[in-house]
Amino acid sequence: MSNRTEISSLGEFGLIEHLTKNFEIKNVSTVLSVGDDAAVIDHFGKQTVVTTDLLVEGIHFDLMYMPLKHLGYKSVIVNLSDVYAMNATPTQITISLAFSNRFSVEALDEFYEGVYAACEKYGVDLVGGDTSSSNKGFIISVTALGEVAPDKFVKRSTAQTGDLICVSGDLGGAFLGLTLMDREKKIFLENPKVQPDLEGEDYIVGRLLKPEARKDVIDFFEENKITPTSMMDISDGLSSEVLHLCRQSNTGCRIYEDKIPINDASRKAAFKFGLDPTMCALNGGEDYELIFTLKQEDHDKIVLNEDISVVGYMTEMEEKCKLLTKGGGTHDIIAQGWNAFGE
Amino acid sequence: MSNRTEISSLGEFGLIEHLTKNFEIKNVSTVLSVGDDAAVIDHFGKQTVVTTDLLVEGIHFDLMYMPLKHLGYKSVIVNLSDVYAMNATPTQITISLAFSNRFSVEALDEFYEGVYAACEKYGVDLVGGDTSSSNKGFIISVTALGEVAPDKFVKRSTAQTGDLICVSGDLGGAFLGLTLMDREKKIFLENPKVQPDLEGEDYIVGRLLKPEARKDVIDFFEENKITPTSMMDISDGLSSEVLHLCRQSNTGCRIYEDKIPINDASRKAAFKFGLDPTMCALNGGEDYELIFTLKQEDHDKIVLNEDISVVGYMTEMEEKCKLLTKGGGTHDIIAQGWNAFGE
Repeated sequence: MSNRTEISSLGEFGLIEHLTKNFEIKNVSTVLSVGDDAAVIDHFGKQTVVTTDLLVEGIHFDLMYMPLKHLGYKSVIVNLSDVYAMNATPTQITISLAFSNRFSVEALDEFYEGVYAACEKYGVDLVGGDTSSSNKGFIISVTALGEVAPDKFVKRSTAQTGDLICVSGDLGGAFLGLTLMDREKKIFLENPKVQPDLEGEDYIVGRLLKPEARKDVIDFFEENKITPTSMMDISDGLSSEVLHLCRQSNTGCRIYEDKIPINDASRKAAFKFGLDPTMCALNGGEDYELIFTLKQEDHDKIVLNEDISVVGYMTEMEEKCKLLTKGGGTHDIIAQGWNAFGE
Repeated sequence: MSNRTEISSLGEFGLIEHLTKNFEIKNVSTVLSVGDDAAVIDHFGKQTVVTTDLLVEGIHFDLMYMPLKHLGYKSVIVNLSDVYAMNATPTQITISLAFSNRFSVEALDEFYEGVYAACEKYGVDLVGGDTSSSNKGFIISVTALGEVAPDKFVKRSTAQTGDLICVSGDLGGAFLGLTLMDREKKIFLENPKVQPDLEGEDYIVGRLLKPEARKDVIDFFEENKITPTSMMDISDGLSSEVLHLCRQSNTGCRIYEDKIPINDASRKAAFKFGLDPTMCALNGGEDYELIFTLKQEDHDKIVLNEDISVVGYMTEMEEKCKLLTKGGGTHDIIAQGWNAFGE
């Protein structure tokens, strides 16, 4: 080949856009295609949501501190999170695995124990998959299918100027859990006799190792007749995701630093590691919370839900994406979330 | 862990059975789950078929002789083949990729050119996916969705004693293509100045590098009101697949060696390599033809189709699975197909 463009020059989303921009839809059943948390397929009265994720050892997880059972659980959760982010209910998953011969059947049993625990908790059926060997490492591909009533699915591209920006739960915890585990791993590698010091860090470790998908938030929407104007899940940090919503909806935004929900345990851990908790929430990944926008008149419907925080609002695109800090400053929001093609 | 069971002791299908045996279905929409070419999901009047495959560099393909465009094409085809094997029509696919930084955007463009060519040819929409980096090698996960009229899907487990066993196209070609490419690769590695000698071997090379899925056979079934009693695709060789049908249908079988369709070009290539063409058809993989069973009274409906060969019939389970050779001998059929967990 005469030309060589480095993939890192496009980034993950640039790459997907590049690779899929010329593709035309051929089936009338394809309601929504590439570019959201999941695709939507029409089936005469119900719509099917489909999403897929590939997890690679050494890139997405480290088996040194990720027990296989937790890995199985999390592999399912990250996909269910994408289905919920469409305002849909997950129903089936498929799992394909590739692994080297250092894995035993007992190791895979542990992995599947986690898979089944997640399926059980979220009422999802495992309906298929594929297993094969790999030369090196463990590779996991999960596809999730879900159902949504016709046209009830919520896209990323439909936020309006003036809409409230909300997030579920709290942010930054998983990144701080990862920071802790990385630190303990380094200590262990230098001196295998030192036991890991995870004392009092259950919260951030749990956020990393056993994330949950926000089924409860989707259920809350249904019970309270709320339809967000746009939504996605927070897998790469608040900055990265709010920029996606704005870019796809052609809006700008204002985010208030003091409104970003951060758990006390996360805040303490951040200070301990010399990190700014806000930066952890903005740029740390893997929280699997939801970010969504609401019409202002729906504010009353969510105000009593302690698991939902209003963090800002959508503006005209020309006003850009800005963070208003506690100190009264204004900063551009830039995507520094986890990037699979990072330098 | 105290116990360690080697995965090779179970084999791929034993492993899947082991891992999924205790899982209970929770959604009424799950019509057919693990254990067939694809799962079937009900959507109020139409049924959705879903199947997934994971392809790993060095295990499933060798980029030294598999051009990326062909690899993209084949990655789609192997999944569409599973959908057709359910007597269904593929409609959407998702693709997840992981690759190391030795791949450029241009390389991925080539891969996607093949993906799009397959989507175009088979009328399928690419609706989503995921890309990420890998430490080593190229990893491809494809999921295909398809539609089938209610209860028109064809399983592996429903063949009856006395049914005719049929296969589409011809067998063994892809394995012979692989044998040729492996030989040329060895020669090249020993002496890079020697150009590969593929003269006159277009057919077997094409079978390996550019397989097609048998949409035409499924269309033929519909036009001629044929519903096979069981069906699957031939990805691991005739032996392995006929044993699957028999095991899942609780039948035995008789296969006639002289009825197994083998292309002249494949036969010639086999002799050149000192291989038995029948063994290539029985044990070689990746032909992506269909094997199906028919009620005897349907024989007239297929007899004029030159792309369908009757190779034997189903017997009572007690009569085991036997190959009747040209020389008049009778041999047990054993699974020697391609095994991803081979020694």
